[in-house]
Amino acid sequence: MKNWEQAWLAYQSNKEYGDKKIFRSYYTMENSNCCRKAEEEIRRSCKALFGTEPVKASHRGDAGIVLEKNPALETGEEGYRICVSDSQAVIQSTGDRGLLYGTFRLLLKASAGETVCGMDIMEKPKNPFRMLNMWDNIDGTIERGYAGRSFLYENGEIQITDRTADFARLLASAGINAIAINNVNVRDGAEWLITQRHREKLKVLARILGDYGVAMYLCIDFAAPMTIDGLPLSDPLDSRVRQWWKEKAGDLFGDIPNLGGFLVKADSEGRPGPFAYGRNHADGANMLAEAVRPYGGTIIWRCFVYNCQQDWRDETTDRAKAGYDNFAYLDGKFAENVILQIKNGPIDFQVREPVHPLFGRLSETNQILEVQAAQEYTGQQIDVCYLVPMWKEVLDFSTGCGKEQDTVADIISGRTFGQVRCGMAAVSNTGKDPNWTGHDLAGANLFGFGRLSWDPALGSEEIAREWTKLQITRDPQAVELITGILLRSREVYEKYTAPLGIGFMVNPSYHYGPNPEGYEYSPWGTYHRADHLAIGVDRSDAGTGYSEQYFEQNASVYRNKETCPENLLLFFHRLPYTYRLSSGKTLIQHVYDTHFEGYEDVEDMEREWLTLEGKIPQEIYERVKERFALQKKNSREWRDVINSFFYRKSMIADEKGRRLY
Amino acid sequence: MKNWEQAWLAYQSNKEYGDKKIFRSYYTMENSNCCRKAEEEIRRSCKALFGTEPVKASHRGDAGIVLEKNPALETGEEGYRICVSDSQAVIQSTGDRGLLYGTFRLLLKASAGETVCGMDIMEKPKNPFRMLNMWDNIDGTIERGYAGRSFLYENGEIQITDRTADFARLLASAGINAIAINNVNVRDGAEWLITQRHREKLKVLARILGDYGVAMYLCIDFAAPMTIDGLPLSDPLDSRVRQWWKEKAGDLFGDIPNLGGFLVKADSEGRPGPFAYGRNHADGANMLAEAVRPYGGTIIWRCFVYNCQQDWRDETTDRAKAGYDNFAYLDGKFAENVILQIKNGPIDFQVREPVHPLFGRLSETNQILEVQAAQEYTGQQIDVCYLVPMWKEVLDFSTGCGKEQDTVADIISGRTFGQVRCGMAAVSNTGKDPNWTGHDLAGANLFGFGRLSWDPALGSEEIAREWTKLQITRDPQAVELITGILLRSREVYEKYTAPLGIGFMVNPSYHYGPNPEGYEYSPWGTYHRADHLAIGVDRSDAGTGYSEQYFEQNASVYRNKETCPENLLLFFHRLPYTYRLSSGKTLIQHVYDTHFEGYEDVEDMEREWLTLEGKIPQEIYERVKERFALQKKNSREWRDVINSFFYRKSMIADEKGRRLY
Repeated sequence: MKNWEQAWLAYQSNKEYGDKKIFRSYYTMENSNCCRKAEEEIRRSCKALFGTEPVKASHRGDAGIVLEKNPALETGEEGYRICVSDSQAVIQSTGDRGLLYGTFRLLLKASAGETVCGMDIMEKPKNPFRMLNMWDNIDGTIERGYAGRSFLYENGEIQITDRTADFARLLASAGINAIAINNVNVRDGAEWLITQRHREKLKVLARILGDYGVAMYLCIDFAAPMTIDGLPLSDPLDSRVRQWWKEKAGDLFGDIPNLGGFLVKADSEGRPGPFAYGRNHADGANMLAEAVRPYGGTIIWRCFVYNCQQDWRDETTDRAKAGYDNFAYLDGKFAENVILQIKNGPIDFQVREPVHPLFGRLSETNQILEVQAAQEYTGQQIDVCYLVPMWKEVLDFSTGCGKEQDTVADIISGRTFGQVRCGMAAVSNTGKDPNWTGHDLAGANLFGFGRLSWDPALGSEEIAREWTKLQITRDPQAVELITGILLRSREVYEKYTAPLGIGFMVNPSYHYGPNPEGYEYSPWGTYHRADHLAIGVDRSDAGTGYSEQYFEQNASVYRNKETCPENLLLFFHRLPYTYRLSSGKTLIQHVYDTHFEGYEDVEDMEREWLTLEGKIPQEIYERVKERFALQKKNSREWRDVINSFFYRKSMIADEKGRRLY
Repeated sequence: MKNWEQAWLAYQSNKEYGDKKIFRSYYTMENSNCCRKAEEEIRRSCKALFGTEPVKASHRGDAGIVLEKNPALETGEEGYRICVSDSQAVIQSTGDRGLLYGTFRLLLKASAGETVCGMDIMEKPKNPFRMLNMWDNIDGTIERGYAGRSFLYENGEIQITDRTADFARLLASAGINAIAINNVNVRDGAEWLITQRHREKLKVLARILGDYGVAMYLCIDFAAPMTIDGLPLSDPLDSRVRQWWKEKAGDLFGDIPNLGGFLVKADSEGRPGPFAYGRNHADGANMLAEAVRPYGGTIIWRCFVYNCQQDWRDETTDRAKAGYDNFAYLDGKFAENVILQIKNGPIDFQVREPVHPLFGRLSETNQILEVQAAQEYTGQQIDVCYLVPMWKEVLDFSTGCGKEQDTVADIISGRTFGQVRCGMAAVSNTGKDPNWTGHDLAGANLFGFGRLSWDPALGSEEIAREWTKLQITRDPQAVELITGILLRSREVYEKYTAPLGIGFMVNPSYHYGPNPEGYEYSPWGTYHRADHLAIGVDRSDAGTGYSEQYFEQNASVYRNKETCPENLLLFFHRLPYTYRLSSGKTLIQHVYDTHFEGYEDVEDMEREWLTLEGKIPQEIYERVKERFALQKKNSREWRDVINSFFYRKSMIADEKGRRLY
């Protein structure tokens, strides 16, 4: 018995399904690995859904499902066409991966209980890169992991189990086509993943992932030539270092031809990088790019670079500006097989941040949008927080970069500037927990990331509803209820945590629970500088000037407190507690009101959840029930701590006379 | 070559020493292990000090040093008489340990360069228990360890090395006669130290310690019957549990007859204890006492018990009151071989706390005063903080308990109430660092604890000067300078950290560096509740009533802000920032002034230290120089964070116009 579940591949039995005749048999002449995995999935899913395993037909005409390549179609390698008549579904693609993706699409539609007869669609992914970043450490822990230990490592060794393939299936079924398998903070022996020491298991892992169309990437230690082979330096312009990486790449790609390349965190939060040698990020990335180019490899280089040793007394330095300052001037300097990976916001995955100002500024550089499915700052998979709406806000953001198609979605798909290597990456929220994601409802974030990176035009609600049907229940009332919880969960989380975009009022290090001054006197660059009268940092042109990193269309909105979106007011401005919001409320009353509301909203969500008993699988019901109890405690803590903090600073009482401590 | 030094047993060469003829030879007829260790120490020290190893004389009359038992003396087992003529030193005692202690006294006097001829003293320890508590974990880490990893454990195993005996020598030479060898938080396998699994090494360890007159104690897990043997409970009144402990004690004392007993942290900070079964601390301690009684064993039971899951909103609960509330009513209920171990203050080893109100309340209970040589809250052996003056304040505190001899020193020596099992314990500040204590100057705390627990009447300055001569230099100017630094170091540390006894404005968990609200919204019970106007918790009769736990002599002082000692003002009272101190300064101006001063004092101390180059051993000079650079940084951080915190809350500017952030 497996001690893990199948998440959205649960295929809950549905013998009454109207179109089940389609799923009686299948036919294919293809014999790629991807295609074999598609066949396996048909057998597995139909057995679970309808009780009988479909047979492989010997004639195309007899088959319920047909998988076939069709070079005449314009699907690309990954796209597919699905045409379903009354008795037969034909899935076509020019590529093997397209057949696998098409199969999953058909099966998930059936698993969701939706009719497939009459379907006639052609779909292609909008983004070439749809990537997961695992922050799994080689000792089996996971940085910012909230779903148990790693299923990829234990005791310094790669683990290959039945779960490995199940994970690859989950990725492929959601449309994810790339994965960086180790933490971007490469340490404690993970530096050696690129050496022969781990080679055999690495080859197996790459094959299992590759069978599901998932390209494997490795996070590397920029100082690896020193760490591994004792070179005296890791200067990217030094010939010995360049040669070392060339040999390392040759060795790696020789053994693992389908390796994707490397993901690199350099000169960030203590990681080594090119700065030590007076070189810039382009020097560092291009050196690696040259090494992997002969094998079609890609270097993904993170833009999360800032001074994490800032003096809190220094009011001139603004961490929010660092990403732009470090990379904007390098546009056009990166090799064609280098991609910059840019976090959605300028700080660090807060529940509310403006969109990163680099988007739109890099017209001649490949780029990937990085989001965090792991709920580091958004409830740690204890509190429910469906992140797809947040990601969609980012994708829909109009950068004003002067092109017609100027949203972040346009830019990272390549539509705006014509890049080919681009897309989205998410920090994974998975672990060894039976349900993969700790909180069952966090499954919607992983699935949602895959779906959204395939097609950013999909709606948050559409994705939530589909996921709910696949992973929890097809019961229509329950689906509405759960979808409703998911859709308002982020707003609720925002209400009871750090207000108005101020961010980072969180317990240091582990980042769960309130601590209004936890980072106030720290070197991390995240300050609110609250005093008796006011709070916030002026990031307008009159302050740190961060607002001016945006194109004028947005800069003009952000730099004025009157036009600045209210939910970002304290991100961009320093304001007195008595400042009047457009609602007519004072800022401080808004804080009090939202915090009382947020807690009540959690009570409501919990109350709703409790009505689901007996209507959904009992384990899921119980697990989520436990999480809601914890969330209630957490939201009460946030409510009271934040309100007390503001009250003790300002000594302004709540207009409604509620108790502040 | 040993990779550790000899601390105050450095025996730095002194060939010009006037009385060196005394140290030419020695004579003894005794052949106990302690006496053999005394002989070894004579040979080792004289060789190092004077260049020639003394010979063992065959006739008493020829010998420079004579060690002999004399049953007629009233020294007790541990005391000694030392009479030194012009050519012979006679050390006598009724006990073997007395001979060892006398030998160390004579040798240290010589090592300090002081004349011994004409000496005629009889000394007995004032406290029967002079104990060290190691917080070493079996994995080799040390809880609150600031001097490297443990030299007692690695990888779950006891380590016996040459360092073990050197440690025992250090203890004996300082007068320490007992040691609990493992962390009071017994976990990660340390539960099994009492089983056969570790027996052989434990026997060796007990023997090495015993040879130096040091009794070994083990910290036990109160739930050991469950942890180790799967009993269904650990109820101290359950006959199976009682039997289990009896057998365990028989087994342990059978193998290790000189075992001292057990030290227990129960029902405290998550440790198991008798509460789970509705029993009290006396039930728990007495059950263990019964088990070890046949072997002369002792149970030491910690009084550090409080609710560490307090709701910060709750203003009625006061952690300071918990020790008294949990134990005062049990006076007289403990077996005669149980000792309660009481921390110096009611909270937790802050740089400034009132004396624990239990002292004086337990007239029919054995008790030990617990202090912390490990500088958890007092600079973590990065900042210099000589603690002997603080400990002396505690020892000299008059409890007003109604007896003539009513100081803490009186009480814990047994003078007040006649207890026999009593004394002092210190949490050790040692580790694997070459100098044992991380900061060289922290050696004075370990040595000082030993000396002070032997004789609380010794002066802080006297101890500091003696230690400096033994461990660093005999150069008179340098001795004065270093003694001067030591003597003011605690006051300096107090100036730049949490002011006026408020305590706990420290970074959570690791407890180094400032974090004014780090514990404000936590469950730990340490709150200052600062708002725009005032700070502090009213612990007077009008507030939580903590002041009323003292005898009236002290309660009357503490309950009134006018009479409360200024350095405890914010421990006992909630006061506005504008409150006028006796100096005429406002409270907030006092905060600003002391914090600016504290930093300047550190600059001064550093400047003085830098004048020592070339006058003291270079390694010591360099190590302490590095620490002062760190202390300067730390004190600047404290200064600015605390001042900013008070300024941002109050918006009251510094009268002297200095920059606040």
